[in-house]
Amino acid sequence: MKRIALDMDGVLADEFGHFADLYEKEKGIRILPEQAQGKKLLQAFPGAGNYIHQPGFFRNSPVIPGSREVVEKLFNTYDLYIVSAAVEYPQSLTEKLEWLKEHFPFIPWQKIVFCGTKDIVSADIMIDDNFKNLDPFSGQTLLFSQPHNYLADPGRHRRVTDWFEIETILL
Amino acid sequence: MKRIALDMDGVLADEFGHFADLYEKEKGIRILPEQAQGKKLLQAFPGAGNYIHQPGFFRNSPVIPGSREVVEKLFNTYDLYIVSAAVEYPQSLTEKLEWLKEHFPFIPWQKIVFCGTKDIVSADIMIDDNFKNLDPFSGQTLLFSQPHNYLADPGRHRRVTDWFEIETILL
Repeated sequence: MKRIALDMDGVLADEFGHFADLYEKEKGIRILPEQAQGKKLLQAFPGAGNYIHQPGFFRNSPVIPGSREVVEKLFNTYDLYIVSAAVEYPQSLTEKLEWLKEHFPFIPWQKIVFCGTKDIVSADIMIDDNFKNLDPFSGQTLLFSQPHNYLADPGRHRRVTDWFEIETILL
Repeated sequence: MKRIALDMDGVLADEFGHFADLYEKEKGIRILPEQAQGKKLLQAFPGAGNYIHQPGFFRNSPVIPGSREVVEKLFNTYDLYIVSAAVEYPQSLTEKLEWLKEHFPFIPWQKIVFCGTKDIVSADIMIDDNFKNLDPFSGQTLLFSQPHNYLADPGRHRRVTDWFEIETILL
């Protein structure tokens, strides 16, 4: 059974949408994905560096549409692991566990990995929105489209724009 | 550079000694390692099932003698990762990070992995006190001696009784 290493932020959790919500609430301006193409989060949302350090940020992230349904199907077909580079943000760890328990309750604790870098992970398929994770990975890669990766280096990884495209490719 | 996957509980953190301390404080009886050979923790310390659920349990674990000095040398020689099956105990995650920061400050967050099961970890050498982690691992294995593994299945893995023995083998 092939093993999938599945990222959280920007793949399951709508990090960009969450930033856009908080930014609009704080500054009264709605930043759209089209305006943020090729920009890192803090370039798209200047002065928002504190958002991810606020208690509850990870716990209250919106879920990316379609992810729950397709991940459940993948979980029943593949050896699926959640692999999140979360150790950089200690407060995120328990929040992420609670978030997964609420939105992806079929994933048991045995299948959750919080790491610093992902190069220690052994898997066949990696789904991620960051080149730094996908580039060193030797298996099949799916780049989940996000504004921050939109203009970067097309072609190095197979780009998917939503969860229904992942369903088509893997199921 | 060879990669080491290094366990925490029972290898860096003195889980048995911590249980013995708490048990003595609660019941007035000191359980010695010699009395606990071949017994799981909760067989050696009946009724102590709540200890690891108490806030501060992981944060206040004693450090196994010699581990700090030898791990620092290993860190400078190998691609060393801390790999702890900690996700089962959500409250342990931030406590373990703080504990590592205090006692092993030279290990950066990039080199810390909290997982459920360790079969997703890719490494050359595993140092662990549990057969369930060592048995499926295909690389070199070092079984760190603890009362719970003392009588079990001799010979499947190379047994080490303290950190100085690890130093002799790996350095």
